[in-house]
Amino acid sequence: MKRTKIIDLLKGELLGEKVNIKGWVRTRRGNKAVTFIALNDGSTIHNVQVVADPDLLPSEEMTRITTGACLNVIGKLVESQGSGQNVEVQAESIEIYGTADPQTYPLQKKGHSLEFLREIAHLRPRTNTFGAIFRIRHNMAIAIHTYFHEHGFVYFNSPLITGSDCEGAGQMFQVTTLDLNKVPKDKDGNVDYSEDFFGKHTALTVSGQLEGEMAAMALGAIYTFGPTFRAENSNTPRHLAEFWMIEPEVAFLEIEENMDLAEDFIKFCVQWALDHCMDDISFLSEHFDKELIDRLRFVLDKPFKRLTYTEGIQVLEDAIKQGRKFEFPVYWGADLASEHERYLVEEYFKRPVIMTDYPKEIKSFYMKINDDDKTVRGMDVLFPKIGEIIGGSEREWNYDKLVKRANEMGVPEKDIWWYLDSRRYGTAPHSGFGLGFERLLLFVTGMSNIRDVIPFPRTPNNAEF
Amino acid sequence: MKRTKIIDLLKGELLGEKVNIKGWVRTRRGNKAVTFIALNDGSTIHNVQVVADPDLLPSEEMTRITTGACLNVIGKLVESQGSGQNVEVQAESIEIYGTADPQTYPLQKKGHSLEFLREIAHLRPRTNTFGAIFRIRHNMAIAIHTYFHEHGFVYFNSPLITGSDCEGAGQMFQVTTLDLNKVPKDKDGNVDYSEDFFGKHTALTVSGQLEGEMAAMALGAIYTFGPTFRAENSNTPRHLAEFWMIEPEVAFLEIEENMDLAEDFIKFCVQWALDHCMDDISFLSEHFDKELIDRLRFVLDKPFKRLTYTEGIQVLEDAIKQGRKFEFPVYWGADLASEHERYLVEEYFKRPVIMTDYPKEIKSFYMKINDDDKTVRGMDVLFPKIGEIIGGSEREWNYDKLVKRANEMGVPEKDIWWYLDSRRYGTAPHSGFGLGFERLLLFVTGMSNIRDVIPFPRTPNNAEF
Repeated sequence: MKRTKIIDLLKGELLGEKVNIKGWVRTRRGNKAVTFIALNDGSTIHNVQVVADPDLLPSEEMTRITTGACLNVIGKLVESQGSGQNVEVQAESIEIYGTADPQTYPLQKKGHSLEFLREIAHLRPRTNTFGAIFRIRHNMAIAIHTYFHEHGFVYFNSPLITGSDCEGAGQMFQVTTLDLNKVPKDKDGNVDYSEDFFGKHTALTVSGQLEGEMAAMALGAIYTFGPTFRAENSNTPRHLAEFWMIEPEVAFLEIEENMDLAEDFIKFCVQWALDHCMDDISFLSEHFDKELIDRLRFVLDKPFKRLTYTEGIQVLEDAIKQGRKFEFPVYWGADLASEHERYLVEEYFKRPVIMTDYPKEIKSFYMKINDDDKTVRGMDVLFPKIGEIIGGSEREWNYDKLVKRANEMGVPEKDIWWYLDSRRYGTAPHSGFGLGFERLLLFVTGMSNIRDVIPFPRTPNNAEF
Repeated sequence: MKRTKIIDLLKGELLGEKVNIKGWVRTRRGNKAVTFIALNDGSTIHNVQVVADPDLLPSEEMTRITTGACLNVIGKLVESQGSGQNVEVQAESIEIYGTADPQTYPLQKKGHSLEFLREIAHLRPRTNTFGAIFRIRHNMAIAIHTYFHEHGFVYFNSPLITGSDCEGAGQMFQVTTLDLNKVPKDKDGNVDYSEDFFGKHTALTVSGQLEGEMAAMALGAIYTFGPTFRAENSNTPRHLAEFWMIEPEVAFLEIEENMDLAEDFIKFCVQWALDHCMDDISFLSEHFDKELIDRLRFVLDKPFKRLTYTEGIQVLEDAIKQGRKFEFPVYWGADLASEHERYLVEEYFKRPVIMTDYPKEIKSFYMKINDDDKTVRGMDVLFPKIGEIIGGSEREWNYDKLVKRANEMGVPEKDIWWYLDSRRYGTAPHSGFGLGFERLLLFVTGMSNIRDVIPFPRTPNNAEF
């Protein structure tokens, strides 16, 4: 008999028919006359209620139907008198695939802390919370691929293992096949990388952007979407050592159009969440963040406010004059903190903000320098609650200026000879940006710790599973 | 003025109108009266011909329009008299964004070898061949996400950095932040991993399957699609140290349905290629593999032949009796070589083959053991030209049998305690498979070296860019 997924069953179209459902027991309750089993199969946050005669199985068997057990149920789909759903299943047969000993099964009780659930990350997808989060994560990935595919972008896989180290000096994970118990040394006493797998020092990438630019200057418009790594010793709710990034890069795009793209793209993603994930979002809103849905709508409401960094500093300085207190100092040249970004978004402009034209000293070497020789065409998209969600720029496409900036910022030319080739041969204006996938998920799910929106978080001293 | 992409321009709907196109010069030719420039912007394999009066620019400027230069052209879209396209652009203005010095630009001439192009992997997307390959790569990724999304699978990101080492013993890349010049040692003289970033030995994953199973046993149906790593010192046209894998995993799926899924999925992908990439496939077929399109259709033609390993060995032994020669020996218990697989597919059954029920000794510990206690419910999908394209199995879902197999095959229980939890709590039948993305791309593009279907290949002694 063909199994029906619970998400399809709950549509009610099979009312009156015999159905087969399979899933995991969330709760079992009842009395001598009747047993109620709430069954979930992961296809939706909603359970279906199975109603069974306690004599359907020998009582010894029946007691093995506890939270976490896996069942194969055949029965009739009927209208429900109060299961919270319109329909329920009157069981005709129940097969127990697997039990879950109540003495040891860690998800026995409800209301575990998120901290505890992180320690059993291999089981937490079985909870309502993480079922919802991972279904939303899926839908946001599909939204991203859909958006770029429909706009003619090519999904481009930049390499994970890299021999170049342009951005992440000191914060990269080394990749090696050398035996650390006996590292081979050359005659000067340094590590002999000629014996390593790649014959040189290699590390995990911190960004696919530079490779992405090479592709954009051939294919026109590309995006990456893959894991990136940062060996930063930060134990905060906002940092992961392994996270996923989306990095579109587009030839012939200048900064204004880059802002248009970022705004259109992020609104598409948020709209997608509202259109496709409302059951899961409602659950998370109810349990973790009552303002979640309002905040999602807030982003869609109005055009984002666009202003320069210099204008932004002015607004913040004015606020300080009028008595607003900030923890971190505000002055032209300072890197804005999350509190400043949130003030602009939540209190002052009351809409998302795109800030541009940052001091060159606080941005990367590849950003296009403005005529003032002081600012660069970077842009950050600032969101309520989380601050910066997107960082991007128009890229410096003039060979000489790029080399000068690379030298000024200590990026060795020998490491980026290939990158410079894109400015040496057939250069053109181009722009792009990066979106941290888990940042987007924090925003869309309302969760407040980034470890809770990725299946198996990697952080300092934590690489279980 | 709004730029038009060449793929849209060639539809001809803007005939008679003024258009703006931007792209890179593929060729320039002409005479004193007229200049013809073939321009490509990566949106399609086809160029558009720009027709210009040689006096449109000062002759000094005009000579800088050489292969690889990047142009911004405004002109009128008119019917063409023989550019190979229906339309061409009569240039009214040309701006040179970037030149490409013919003395040094490596893609000056046509007909570079694939080997040479691998050395300039940062520029090769600018060639017709690699433009075609990377557009196809994109489309196949979209096909894969589309298929699984439409079938209710959740995209699940298994971790890249892992502390467990269940499958890849000896073939994993170590990930570390320890300084290899002065590796810290404990009092026994061993590496002191307490000082490493994760506080323990970590490596890059060889498969996301085990984590994927944990998710399938909660969400019902999941798929991974991400990079995986193998530190295998194999310099062959079929091996990469970094490659992308797709690994669906489905609760309640047994081996027969797993075969149905694999066949339906791979046919969907091949059909997608024919439906969405015909321009690029035709180009590759013409230049590299005349039989490519026939081979793609061959796969779609008939149901795949399903047979057991034991039956397959019988067919091969019969062939040998009748005089067929193979390089590698055939006997029950042997791992089949590509030549055997191709004989079954191309010569004997004349259709793709799904082989099942392999000797347990040559398959992984997690495959469900059959009642004969000799074979396991593994399945390989065998394709023309490339041999195995998919490998999968029904998973052993009985706790005791799984532990026994793990012990027999030397997989330490302490490394897979979390994996075993899925059999300890709410276990159920489930199945899945893995598809090497680049294997699929070899099949769909007709290329014969796997280094040519990934943007920046990583192989022994090669991690440039």
